[in-house]
Amino acid sequence: MSNTVFYKDTFTKISEEKKDIVFTVAIAEFAAMGYNATNINTIAQKAKISIGSLYSYFESKEDLFLAMAEKGYELLNKALAELHPEEGTVFEVIERLLHIAFAYAEKHTDFCRIYLDLSTEGLSHLSERLTENVETSYVHVYKKLLAAAKAKGEVRADLDVDMAAFFLDNIVVMLQFSLASSYYRSRIKLYLGEDYAQDRKRIIAGLMRIVKRSFS
Amino acid sequence: MSNTVFYKDTFTKISEEKKDIVFTVAIAEFAAMGYNATNINTIAQKAKISIGSLYSYFESKEDLFLAMAEKGYELLNKALAELHPEEGTVFEVIERLLHIAFAYAEKHTDFCRIYLDLSTEGLSHLSERLTENVETSYVHVYKKLLAAAKAKGEVRADLDVDMAAFFLDNIVVMLQFSLASSYYRSRIKLYLGEDYAQDRKRIIAGLMRIVKRSFS
Repeated sequence: MSNTVFYKDTFTKISEEKKDIVFTVAIAEFAAMGYNATNINTIAQKAKISIGSLYSYFESKEDLFLAMAEKGYELLNKALAELHPEEGTVFEVIERLLHIAFAYAEKHTDFCRIYLDLSTEGLSHLSERLTENVETSYVHVYKKLLAAAKAKGEVRADLDVDMAAFFLDNIVVMLQFSLASSYYRSRIKLYLGEDYAQDRKRIIAGLMRIVKRSFS
Repeated sequence: MSNTVFYKDTFTKISEEKKDIVFTVAIAEFAAMGYNATNINTIAQKAKISIGSLYSYFESKEDLFLAMAEKGYELLNKALAELHPEEGTVFEVIERLLHIAFAYAEKHTDFCRIYLDLSTEGLSHLSERLTENVETSYVHVYKKLLAAAKAKGEVRADLDVDMAAFFLDNIVVMLQFSLASSYYRSRIKLYLGEDYAQDRKRIIAGLMRIVKRSFS
């Protein structure tokens, strides 16, 4: 299943360089300001194209925003390709997952900001237009991984796979949000202290202890 | 420590009934639309007051929004007063906490929507104006509770209190978000199925199993 395409044919015909400029500018604006406060004229100006050109690439601000969300979703799927859920024990896989999630949030902070914005009630008319989203891609990976681990006896026999998958995703989401906005950055420092909050290894080790204890 | 006051003196002088109307309308608008898409004229209209009166109560749309956030914060503190962190075992307290968090999210869904919005990067200029927020009130409760449980030997001796408190808050935040927006409501159904996702008791029981295993 794939999403609707949110750009027009015209957009596929421009140079990769020009595409990159439009994406880079739009992502930065939407991430910093939020969807509603972003001005599509500012995006055109900063990308050094006319507003007419921008509308010839994207039907509306909505479509431009959703095209950006889709781009982030592609990058996430690319990052998840490094998960190799069949290699090693379930806990090795989960540890790789946390590293991937953390690295994604650090490298693609702007996309995490866009996703956080997209999850608010005010933007539900937009998130509803995505037939596929970050969640659908994760949910299957998690459930399959945990069901296989249960069959192999790597986790306890009475593990509730659905609840464990939900719990695992909560950890991933909160880890990514913790880097995604000033609000969550302050929050994690409040809990873990300035140094700890910046120590990726320590955070992942702490979370892995929790995951191992609750799944074993 | 208390927040700055976000309303003007004039607001304290109007009837409780009139105050309630302004609050009810403003909360519903901000929650459904998000801060940026909310029109302060619409709030005045729906509350059946002039825009001049509204500005005589609140300096700006920003202040009105922050006054609403503060109201939610007061209600949450009121709800947390039922926690009684000194009564019963640490796991009984945590179970009460999850029930309180769930009940708050069901009863005050609109406030959860406002908090979700407030946590986005685009609204960091607003969240920074709150000297105190939901997080500061929770962080102390959690750390104190877990440190006391450690001293009493109710949790394992090597429990990392900071990480455990952060982990506990992640559960509470995700539980509240799961009810706060259409996006998260779809997500929880994707993980737990239509029936399970609506079964408060089952969700809390599932989370308690995870908490007990990881803290014991």
